[in-house]
Amino acid sequence: MYTGGYTGKVLRINLTDRTWNEEPLREDMAADFIGGAGFCIKYIYDEVGPHADPLGPDNKLIYAPGPLTGTSVPCTSRMAIGALSPLTGGANVGLTGGHFPNEMKAAGYDAFIIEGQSAEPVYVWIKGAEVRFRPAGELWGMTTSDCQQAIKDELKDQNVRVSCIGPAGENLSKIASIVNERRVVGRRGFGAVMGSKNLKAIALRGNGRVPIADEVKFAAARKNIRDLMKNSPVLYPAFSKVGTSMLVEGMCAVGVFPAKNFTATGAFTPDEEIGSGALGAYGAGRMACAGCPVACSQMRLAQDGLYAGVLAEGPEYETLYSYGGMTGVDNADAIIAADRLSDEYGIDTISAGATIAFAMELWERGILTAEDTGGMDLSFGQKDSMVRLIPMMAQRQGIGDILADGSREAAKKIGKGTEKYAMHVKGLEFPGYDPRGAMAMAMNYATCYAGADHNKGFPVQELLGTPIPKEFDRFAYEEKGWLAAYNQDMATGLSDSATMCVFPVLLALAGVATETVSALLDAATGIPFRAEDIKVVGERTNNLARVYNTLVGFTRADDDLPERIKTEPLSQGAASGHSVPQEAFDSMLDEYYDSRGWTREGIPGGAKLRELGLEYAAAKLGVAK
Amino acid sequence: MYTGGYTGKVLRINLTDRTWNEEPLREDMAADFIGGAGFCIKYIYDEVGPHADPLGPDNKLIYAPGPLTGTSVPCTSRMAIGALSPLTGGANVGLTGGHFPNEMKAAGYDAFIIEGQSAEPVYVWIKGAEVRFRPAGELWGMTTSDCQQAIKDELKDQNVRVSCIGPAGENLSKIASIVNERRVVGRRGFGAVMGSKNLKAIALRGNGRVPIADEVKFAAARKNIRDLMKNSPVLYPAFSKVGTSMLVEGMCAVGVFPAKNFTATGAFTPDEEIGSGALGAYGAGRMACAGCPVACSQMRLAQDGLYAGVLAEGPEYETLYSYGGMTGVDNADAIIAADRLSDEYGIDTISAGATIAFAMELWERGILTAEDTGGMDLSFGQKDSMVRLIPMMAQRQGIGDILADGSREAAKKIGKGTEKYAMHVKGLEFPGYDPRGAMAMAMNYATCYAGADHNKGFPVQELLGTPIPKEFDRFAYEEKGWLAAYNQDMATGLSDSATMCVFPVLLALAGVATETVSALLDAATGIPFRAEDIKVVGERTNNLARVYNTLVGFTRADDDLPERIKTEPLSQGAASGHSVPQEAFDSMLDEYYDSRGWTREGIPGGAKLRELGLEYAAAKLGVAK
Repeated sequence: MYTGGYTGKVLRINLTDRTWNEEPLREDMAADFIGGAGFCIKYIYDEVGPHADPLGPDNKLIYAPGPLTGTSVPCTSRMAIGALSPLTGGANVGLTGGHFPNEMKAAGYDAFIIEGQSAEPVYVWIKGAEVRFRPAGELWGMTTSDCQQAIKDELKDQNVRVSCIGPAGENLSKIASIVNERRVVGRRGFGAVMGSKNLKAIALRGNGRVPIADEVKFAAARKNIRDLMKNSPVLYPAFSKVGTSMLVEGMCAVGVFPAKNFTATGAFTPDEEIGSGALGAYGAGRMACAGCPVACSQMRLAQDGLYAGVLAEGPEYETLYSYGGMTGVDNADAIIAADRLSDEYGIDTISAGATIAFAMELWERGILTAEDTGGMDLSFGQKDSMVRLIPMMAQRQGIGDILADGSREAAKKIGKGTEKYAMHVKGLEFPGYDPRGAMAMAMNYATCYAGADHNKGFPVQELLGTPIPKEFDRFAYEEKGWLAAYNQDMATGLSDSATMCVFPVLLALAGVATETVSALLDAATGIPFRAEDIKVVGERTNNLARVYNTLVGFTRADDDLPERIKTEPLSQGAASGHSVPQEAFDSMLDEYYDSRGWTREGIPGGAKLRELGLEYAAAKLGVAK
Repeated sequence: MYTGGYTGKVLRINLTDRTWNEEPLREDMAADFIGGAGFCIKYIYDEVGPHADPLGPDNKLIYAPGPLTGTSVPCTSRMAIGALSPLTGGANVGLTGGHFPNEMKAAGYDAFIIEGQSAEPVYVWIKGAEVRFRPAGELWGMTTSDCQQAIKDELKDQNVRVSCIGPAGENLSKIASIVNERRVVGRRGFGAVMGSKNLKAIALRGNGRVPIADEVKFAAARKNIRDLMKNSPVLYPAFSKVGTSMLVEGMCAVGVFPAKNFTATGAFTPDEEIGSGALGAYGAGRMACAGCPVACSQMRLAQDGLYAGVLAEGPEYETLYSYGGMTGVDNADAIIAADRLSDEYGIDTISAGATIAFAMELWERGILTAEDTGGMDLSFGQKDSMVRLIPMMAQRQGIGDILADGSREAAKKIGKGTEKYAMHVKGLEFPGYDPRGAMAMAMNYATCYAGADHNKGFPVQELLGTPIPKEFDRFAYEEKGWLAAYNQDMATGLSDSATMCVFPVLLALAGVATETVSALLDAATGIPFRAEDIKVVGERTNNLARVYNTLVGFTRADDDLPERIKTEPLSQGAASGHSVPQEAFDSMLDEYYDSRGWTREGIPGGAKLRELGLEYAAAKLGVAK
């Protein structure tokens, strides 16, 4: 039974009839799923029918921070948002930071469950245990920073925190994101879920405190994590100064920085143009999420030409990959502008950049022509076309309408055998790591419930050399199924459910992450969390998500990679010669299933589900015997 | 002696040595100049040498609200900013609203005097009687809304109020503005004055109250103005719903809506495309200055094409004129985008639009070609070229560098006899009223100390039919010199020095404006202001400004209008056939000087200066005998 960490209250908001009520947080939820992604998956499993229309009134949006969110533990102003994804069709969860998560706890809630569909544009205003439904007709069409400011002005309170969508979400782009301040829940199309509900924004103000179960233990655990962070050789000396952009140099060096829609990885390595070194000249300060001493968020200001004066948060590594490597645009000014426009129009940078790169490959192949693009040259490297396409996608203008739902949908609309050039798994575009140079990443992309998601199982062993639980050869196939599952469960437990920011976990806690975080959870909540529980919560969540997606209709066939990855070895760079041949892929996938206790068809086994306390899921799946 | 209204403190900030001190507000200043523009002109006269470089360390920036600012009187969160103008070369003053003026009084100040020049980019942070000089290197280059947000984030206080410049001011554009929130001090190039001082912003937070000399009298006077406003047939029923855009229809109807750089007034009347009716479809809420019940500020959201999703405050009438009529762009989306970009890059919409229109006329005449513009088509009506030119001017890119300092400077650089197409007086571009259809406006443009400024002497008698002090035929030449001086003194006293917003003055107070405002001033300050004092303060200020500008070197020759106004009668519309012939112009100007007690050379006479208590100015001018 929890006696701290949690507020104990879940806010259920029904947009159809504009009602709301508070429900107690169930104790088994807290112990079994911790918070964040765990809560999201559990609520989706419990409440959203697997055949619901992701853009219909039966889908639900779950907002869930963790039990450390809102406490004085650094790097915990994080929350998960979960829903049935219009992009993948399955259960999905995205994480975000900023100030909104802490404010949500201060407002008194462990989770929001947002259901139904408003007849008119609306925003929800939550303050002091009161929920108001306010008309959003005049906000409809606004970009995200304007929308946030307009709400603060309307409420006459500049300290309100806002989570909102831009035009992309309103126009039901399946790669639309949800934006709070300069922080984004991207990729999974949750912006479109909000848009489909006619929900422009959630505004929030709270001043409550999160109770702590054992203040003495908590202070010690908190000191421990601060010391670990302070002593990290990477966190403050390097990471806080350049942020994730440091990965550009790193991934170029190991030959996995993807280029030109994965046709030129290793050959196009713009690390000197858009890496962390080059970006120093664009520096315009740093930002931090609430309570974060690291402040990894680098503000960059475009300096020259058409985009001079445009400010962006980041561009983060993934954006440098998508608007840089993928499109062949080695121009920092254009990438900064693309980044800002994406956040303003509320469209995901990874999926948008990857989808533009997909279109560029079709242009290079002569499949798309000037007639399709309204005269725009879509050759790789055409920076102004790339930037221009972003609002066109968000507004569904011209070819932007075809690209607005990501590469899989675009390929369907365009036809002509273009599906094989769409670099995605389950509809979710690849992030910035060519899996031909990292086999556990290949397995993670293929099997993750969310689609090709780097954050839900990043193989630090392969790409960052972290020897935990041991060293791995990134090109070897053996044990990679097992390793992918290990990384997925750790990530889902630590960063997604305990909602501890992934960066200190990777760069400061590493081998002691589960001990450190479980001690914090234990002290904050009063629930006796032990180190080994973290990974079990991750495993439980991944299994429940898998059960759900199986009920949706996903099979082994969906745990796949695009043909190119299997048949076209890299031709240059440190991963040259490597691919993920079909035979190796199959054997790794078998091993993944075996290590998870799932059938070779990818269906969770009854024994494993029972072991995880998911008897009810086993019953639903018909494997309860 | 004042016992309320004023805080009694003036803050002097020296940027060269980063020092500051508080000085008492002199009692004679309060009684003789009220505040706002009066204070600005007085401080400029006293402290800035007439031969100082406007962009050098010897120029000073004066911020001055009025004695009603920060009180509960509606529509008084207004302030003046004064300095030697880099655009006109003379003393100049701009007014603005928003929240900054009230906050300035809450912080405890009747005025700021900002002097010197910082060696490095800096911003000033004023809170609780403490002034801090903070590095602004990372803010340099930012657009104005990003800069304001970055400062709030850095200071960890979202309620800070910021007055700042954008890239135009940094790049010393002589038409750069100063921006606080979405409110602007435009036109006079004061953004460049801030830029020349390496001053990116002033940030402010206060919580003091403005003392009131006589609370009982004050409450009665306040009720009186509220009743007058409430009973106005125009203020709430119409003006608050559409703002200044209602003037588009009005000025088109009377044939003075200027078009295509004053070559097509009356012929190009886009009131159905960009008038207040048409703009209703772009509505996205309204905003108010602090304490204003009118909320005339209309937010507009671009709907279609390239600019869809761009939000702007306004466009106000003057912007609809400059980016609409002047450029021949009858497209609301493009004008909204141009408006927003102007505010973001910190460049004045009137001067920028008028200067672009000037360039367009040169293009039509073949004087500017694609070689000059980098391939851009500058024909009248080219909306995308117009929008693109704005950041180019602010950043001094390509032809933007030539246009960045307004039409007079552009004509000088281009040569080829183009000066006659530059529609300005004393370097200040014409606002949105063709003076060929309003002779007192013609006189006001020609004689105003600030250049062609509509706000400092608007002929409501001619253009709005207001019969105060009596009715006037707008095309008649008689009494127009006198009327221009009357309007200038009233405007300078009421809206510029008492800093009462011009709109309630015109639309609600009208004939009782001086009685209403003097009663408020009397009750607030304890100084026995009477109705007739208001105009005298305006006259005193205008005379002192004239003395100063005479010392700068201005003569009768500077009180002139562009050749076109005198030689090209309007060919269409309700003012068709009219111009301001040289002979009529000369006689009106003589009458203006005569009515002011100035010589026919435009030099203030000793008797008048003595009458106004400006013996010291008479002595300096050598007319003290």
